[in-house]
Amino acid sequence: MTSPLRIGIAGLGTVGAGTVAVLREHATELAVRAGRPLELTAVSARDRSKDRGIDVSGLTWHEDAAALATDPNVDVVAELIGGADGVAKSLTEAALAAGKHVVTANKALIAHHGTALARAAESNGVSLAYEAAVAGGIPIIKALREGLAANRVERLYGILNGTCNYILTNMAQSGREFADVLAEAQELGYAETDPSFDIDGVDTAHKLAILASVAFGTEVDFDGVHVEGIRHVSPVDIEFARELGYGIKLLGVAARTADGIEQRVHPCMVPENAPINHVNGVFNGIEVAGDFVDTTIYEGRGAGAGPTASAVVADIIDIARGNAVATFAVPADQLKPAETVAMDRHRGPYYVRLMVVDKPGVFAGIATSLGDNNVSMESVLQRGRAPGAPVPVVMTVHDSQEADMLRTLDAIAKLDAVVEAPRMIRIETFE
Amino acid sequence: MTSPLRIGIAGLGTVGAGTVAVLREHATELAVRAGRPLELTAVSARDRSKDRGIDVSGLTWHEDAAALATDPNVDVVAELIGGADGVAKSLTEAALAAGKHVVTANKALIAHHGTALARAAESNGVSLAYEAAVAGGIPIIKALREGLAANRVERLYGILNGTCNYILTNMAQSGREFADVLAEAQELGYAETDPSFDIDGVDTAHKLAILASVAFGTEVDFDGVHVEGIRHVSPVDIEFARELGYGIKLLGVAARTADGIEQRVHPCMVPENAPINHVNGVFNGIEVAGDFVDTTIYEGRGAGAGPTASAVVADIIDIARGNAVATFAVPADQLKPAETVAMDRHRGPYYVRLMVVDKPGVFAGIATSLGDNNVSMESVLQRGRAPGAPVPVVMTVHDSQEADMLRTLDAIAKLDAVVEAPRMIRIETFE
Repeated sequence: MTSPLRIGIAGLGTVGAGTVAVLREHATELAVRAGRPLELTAVSARDRSKDRGIDVSGLTWHEDAAALATDPNVDVVAELIGGADGVAKSLTEAALAAGKHVVTANKALIAHHGTALARAAESNGVSLAYEAAVAGGIPIIKALREGLAANRVERLYGILNGTCNYILTNMAQSGREFADVLAEAQELGYAETDPSFDIDGVDTAHKLAILASVAFGTEVDFDGVHVEGIRHVSPVDIEFARELGYGIKLLGVAARTADGIEQRVHPCMVPENAPINHVNGVFNGIEVAGDFVDTTIYEGRGAGAGPTASAVVADIIDIARGNAVATFAVPADQLKPAETVAMDRHRGPYYVRLMVVDKPGVFAGIATSLGDNNVSMESVLQRGRAPGAPVPVVMTVHDSQEADMLRTLDAIAKLDAVVEAPRMIRIETFE
Repeated sequence: MTSPLRIGIAGLGTVGAGTVAVLREHATELAVRAGRPLELTAVSARDRSKDRGIDVSGLTWHEDAAALATDPNVDVVAELIGGADGVAKSLTEAALAAGKHVVTANKALIAHHGTALARAAESNGVSLAYEAAVAGGIPIIKALREGLAANRVERLYGILNGTCNYILTNMAQSGREFADVLAEAQELGYAETDPSFDIDGVDTAHKLAILASVAFGTEVDFDGVHVEGIRHVSPVDIEFARELGYGIKLLGVAARTADGIEQRVHPCMVPENAPINHVNGVFNGIEVAGDFVDTTIYEGRGAGAGPTASAVVADIIDIARGNAVATFAVPADQLKPAETVAMDRHRGPYYVRLMVVDKPGVFAGIATSLGDNNVSMESVLQRGRAPGAPVPVVMTVHDSQEADMLRTLDAIAKLDAVVEAPRMIRIETFE
């Protein structure tokens, strides 16, 4: 066990450079912890002449990342290129087929192809490790796959996208509009020039699909995730939420229900005192409830060179130590089909905001719309009165089925006195 | 790898019975996850006739726990007896010597004898696993030893004793005195009849010593932990803390300093917004800062049958999977001596409360005491005025050395106008 574990890194962007930094700065300690030296032998990136602050002398430089898969001096390929398909996928497949371990930070790849790649890894007797793909520096994959392995996981809730959490936190603190805060986040580098991947919930959905697979022993089912982003979250809803004792967070939720497994990403109202409501700014947080362990919570930075490299190198250390666990906690050929429940069968409490012109009979119309669809009101709040002008009316309703809620909102939207499309936000009670 | 892993449990108290429940209720899933059946073959407890709600038919019953160490049908001994010495220690030593893995929930045993037991385990090629010994269901040992293994850990802070956290949370919410809340906690079963082990900080210190060893790669040094409990925390200090923007928590803190490693357990004032300040009631929480990962946080139940059994069985699954990591993250024979720094060299900000009879010159005397000892005041707050009667005066001081603070408090205590022993609480800024 004293022969070095030889590492080839594909992709020398932020995370790749961070991984090189960890391996070099902590080489001595890592060798002691891993029981053998972790030796960086090869790298691949697009432009060799670019200055990345990394000394690549002594390393094999592959112009083509695919060459890492056949490099005889590489035992582990760290795939840090990104993207669900293309080079990342072909490199991963080739490396696994060649009997090399693969460590990746690529959530899109695992969300879309995780089950097939896990089968490939396991049939070749190598590891496919992806701690860095979900929640950056938080060792949540290890926690689910090993630390909580004695439990039947019932539910998990994640703040999995730092950009969204930064925007929502900032909106809550400043009272500003979504578009303003997004523009500022882009200037500060907390949001991409094209932010849709983050703010429309896709990135969260990738991570959620991975977590659900590990938690429930099911095939990765990204297509089964119901996805809504945060574009429609408005300061007025944040303010009403606060009055009602809630914060608003973009959560990924995976839960066992009587009908199957729910996987959903959308803005949620969460109780002010819920631990996850205190996860702010660019931090990520995950709450996991298991049948014996009850509730556990994990928080940390979800992105960035250091945290992500920390996870990449943790996976490499596992491989060096000879520790192998089935990719998604149970062997890939024993993963169950996902059987994701359609969103219209979701049940839970809801918040609804209407803009209403105060006329006689308007509340009767709303009440009828609710009653006709099996939805029962918990509370209602009307703010101010301006004769003839629309005012917000805010309701919370008891546990209802999503399909009934959607019919209710359709009916309410047709009322004469209701002048804007009703806004609905699901409430999470963590029960 | 399809032969069962055979388990013998020593001690059928709450945790032992919980472990049996997990192994039986989840037998099918656990076999899939572990790659082989986890088979309970033998148990040992004091009184065979006692009804524990467990069917022991088909199990070998050992009157003497020591017999588990030589039972040929046991691969793993789960030591759930407790106590730093006595049967727990001799059984653990004998089992390791016999080439059996040991899983334990016994923090006192590991805190006092961890280094020697780790050497015994490693020289015999077996695991000594103790996830259940620290923070119950929170997989913090795994997080430190594996998930964060790429990092140099700089500091960790833990709320590690649910009894203390329950009492402090309740005091903060109700404004009641320590003795009242303790009595109630005893009635509710959250505190022992003899509560000193918990409320005097010893239990927290056991766990802290273990965490520090894993985090820093040092020999377990329980004797090096500075320990203070919560008996002196008073409602008036909780109220002043709140005014100043702090909560009061009993923390175990382990940190690298320029002089060596600090290990200390004492009540702390923590910023109201610090994540650890939101860990309430019987929950435990640990904040770990590593050089690459930055800050990560872990929360969950720190005790109880289910959470503790969850950790015991997670360790058993690791063993069944064939995954072995050095007991304290680095091989026991490479652990560094602890070199714990004496508490009088601690540096940090402090809160001080004096009860002062308002006389001319009193503030001059206080100021002189501070100045003479290199302590500089940050803020001062005097509440009310009652001519001739003592009133509280509260100060915070900038980063100071503990030895200087103690001299300052001695000098202040000697002032005529100061009518009670000054109360000091250390402030943690998490920076």
